[in-house]
This record gives sequence, structure tokens and C-alpha cells, in this order.
Amino acid sequence: MLKKNYMCPVEALVDIIGGKWKMPIISLLFQGTQRYGALRQALPDVTERMLTLQLRELEQSGIVQRKVHAEVPPRVEYSLTELGLSLEPVIQVMLSWSEKYLCEIKQKADWWEELSNR
Amino acid sequence: MLKKNYMCPVEALVDIIGGKWKMPIISLLFQGTQRYGALRQALPDVTERMLTLQLRELEQSGIVQRKVHAEVPPRVEYSLTELGLSLEPVIQVMLSWSEKYLCEIKQKADWWEELSNR
Repeated sequence: MLKKNYMCPVEALVDIIGGKWKMPIISLLFQGTQRYGALRQALPDVTERMLTLQLRELEQSGIVQRKVHAEVPPRVEYSLTELGLSLEPVIQVMLSWSEKYLCEIKQKADWWEELSNR
Repeated sequence: MLKKNYMCPVEALVDIIGGKWKMPIISLLFQGTQRYGALRQALPDVTERMLTLQLRELEQSGIVQRKVHAEVPPRVEYSLTELGLSLEPVIQVMLSWSEKYLCEIKQKADWWEELSNR
């Protein structure tokens, strides 16, 4: 599961959530267990191959668990592991900082645009 | 400064700190202003080209500021901006989760190794 020796432990977290679709998937799973089809529907821009790959990586990281129910057709469900659930407060702090950051950066950009339009 | 439209704001933070040498650089700057040479010495494994590139990206993200003192030879110093300093509690939370995560993963790996050696 450990990809490499990290220079800083934080890089492990960046690796876990850094994939293009990881954050949207994790956010959906914070809402509870999701069937594969529901994830597909909620993320229409992601290809089936990519969604499967990202889910498998999250599974390998120990963040997501996959459960196949022996039905016909088989029902495949994804949920967060205990480790995955423990990410929620961390991501909340990250989200709050990021929102402020994006807002500040946007304000600066608008200010520059206004200045250069004078 | 904004590279793209993010699907999730957290991706902005991942972009900022995700570069291979970003976290070690930011950690050093949490300790205070650093001369370019001091950063070089503290990070002997990073090439000069890479260090400059990573510092420039952090500057473009609004996290790091560069100050050139008009001396001979010119003294170049790097420090965190207010935005960069506001990252400290966020990175603390991320670090604490990551350390626990790496520890848990290691325990599991050791357990599997022990089991397979029986």
C-alpha cells in the first residue's frame, strides 16, 4: 500500500486524495454507502475505466471498501473504511482554507483586471 | 495564479503543496525567513534548477515571497506570505492524520509479513 518513502508524511495524504476524481468520490462517500451505478451517475464526466481505477486506488490506500452482494445482477457497493471516515475533519479544514484561498486569489485577479481596464 | 477550474476547492491546496519539494520547503519556511543558500543546504538532494522552479511556483501561488537585498553579492531571501503562514494549522492537521495513517499501514504490513513467515 505504501508507494514510496515519503520525505514528509503529508505527501502520503496528498497521494491519497490527489487523483483527479478522488476528492469528488470521497465527498460522495462521506454521504454514505454508494452503489457503483450511483457514483457513475453523480460523476457523468468520468469514464467508467477511470472511475474503476480511482476506486481501486482508494481501496488499495485503505480508504474505501468494496462489497459485492451475491444477487443477480450482483450489487456492488462502496463505502469509506474507518480510516476513510477519519479523513472527514481533515478534509473539512483543508476545504475551509482552500475556499478562502480561492476567494482571495479571485479578488486579486478582479482587482488587477479592473486596474488594467481603467 | 489559478491554474484551472477545480471540481473541488481542496484540489487547489493539493496543487499548491503537491510538488515533490513543496512540503519540505514550506516546512523550512515555517521556521522563518531563509536565504536561498540555506534552503539549498537543507535540501541537498534537490537540484538547483528544481529548487528554483518549486520556489517560483510557490511564489506564483501566493504562498512564498522572495526578497532581493541590494548587496554585493545580492542576498536573496524567501519567506511565507500571510497566506502561506495561514497554512500552518492546516498542515498540522494533515500531518497528524498522515502520521497516524502511515503508522497504521506499517502495522498492517508488518502483521502480514509475520503471518507469511510462519
